[in-house]
Amino acid sequence: MFIKLDAQTRSKVDLVDITERINEAITEADISEGICFLYCPHTTAGIILNENWDPTVESDVAMILDHMVPEDLPYRHAEGNSPAHIKSILVGSDHFIFIHNGRLQMGQWQGVFLAELDGPRHRDIWIKVVSDADTC
Amino acid sequence: MFIKLDAQTRSKVDLVDITERINEAITEADISEGICFLYCPHTTAGIILNENWDPTVESDVAMILDHMVPEDLPYRHAEGNSPAHIKSILVGSDHFIFIHNGRLQMGQWQGVFLAELDGPRHRDIWIKVVSDADTC
Amino acid sequence: MFIKLDAQTRSKVDLVDITERINEAITEADISEGICFLYCPHTTAGIILNENWDPTVESDVAMILDHMVPEDLPYRHAEGNSPAHIKSILVGSDHFIFIHNGRLQMGQWQGVFLAELDGPRHRDIWIKVVSDADTC
Repeated sequence: MFIKLDAQTRSKVDLVDITERINEAITEADISEGICFLYCPHTTAGIILNENWDPTVESDVAMILDHMVPEDLPYRHAEGNSPAHIKSILVGSDHFIFIHNGRLQMGQWQGVFLAELDGPRHRDIWIKVVSDADTC
Repeated sequence: MFIKLDAQTRSKVDLVDITERINEAITEADISEGICFLYCPHTTAGIILNENWDPTVESDVAMILDHMVPEDLPYRHAEGNSPAHIKSILVGSDHFIFIHNGRLQMGQWQGVFLAELDGPRHRDIWIKVVSDADTC
Repeated sequence: MFIKLDAQTRSKVDLVDITERINEAITEADISEGICFLYCPHTTAGIILNENWDPTVESDVAMILDHMVPEDLPYRHAEGNSPAHIKSILVGSDHFIFIHNGRLQMGQWQGVFLAELDGPRHRDIWIKVVSDADTC
């Protein structure tokens, strides 16, 4: 089953927690056990699986991405957002999470974030939910 | 269905756009809706999903990878290509993209690149195409 | 089929080769052709696919991760392990590998590592093995 989520991001770098919205989509799809495939169709955004408990983790992630991919290197890409393209490659556009008992099966501290890297913008996340019942 | 692609890379760091070659493979596999799994069996190359419209994005990606993983750290690996191993881990060896209407379902600006990180060499990409019709 | 592996890591950053343990799990699952999905449910650990032949690659990976994500930036996360969270995002928590002839189908030099980034700790790896026979 194919599902689209969207989100309005609020700043240049912004981690939007979409964990519960994905769980709601799995509930609507009525799938108990399976795999949830997540895909971000943008070249200056991505998807992050990490701690969603302490919001300082989010700000630290933004800081270290800026440290690793500084804005002031001699980039050639004329739009001026090469750092965002590269951050998107580093965090990844495609991730999967298992589904168990009708919900994302994650670790105790894990959540799913849409990672805005060149916002604020309107962004999409594409989801495909595959049931184990269909494959086993 | 399992498909192998290969490519001859042209320089030490080289992003080879393989988007249309994958679309041709999906056409040959005669799959309309599904998931395309891409795997790079090399330890000094990888796969990148990002902008394939403006070629300066490619050169900026190569530059920032060199900035992040400098050649002159005290590496111990005797072959001298530790930076390429690490870049391979950062960009990733395994990625998936949904299939819709018999083609890769990507964002407007997205393409798929074989990322050569220690070339020039002859490289392989392994592809598995799974149809939704088989699982739903 | 869902399988859990666990491992005790031995140091702060530690790459534990789990390739053969996964192969044993595939043998027990009696699957010949398919896809093996690997998931790390921790926010300060991850999974790495790369060379498992020369152990100096492992120590070089640890060194460059420390270089890219230094310990002495002004992190706000009070637990003091923000660098480990970020390294986890960079290497990734979710990876897949094809299965062929009842074993992981990897390149000649590739292996699978549990990447401990804030150890030593006891860690889990979750595995889902999907057979092509079930989907094709």
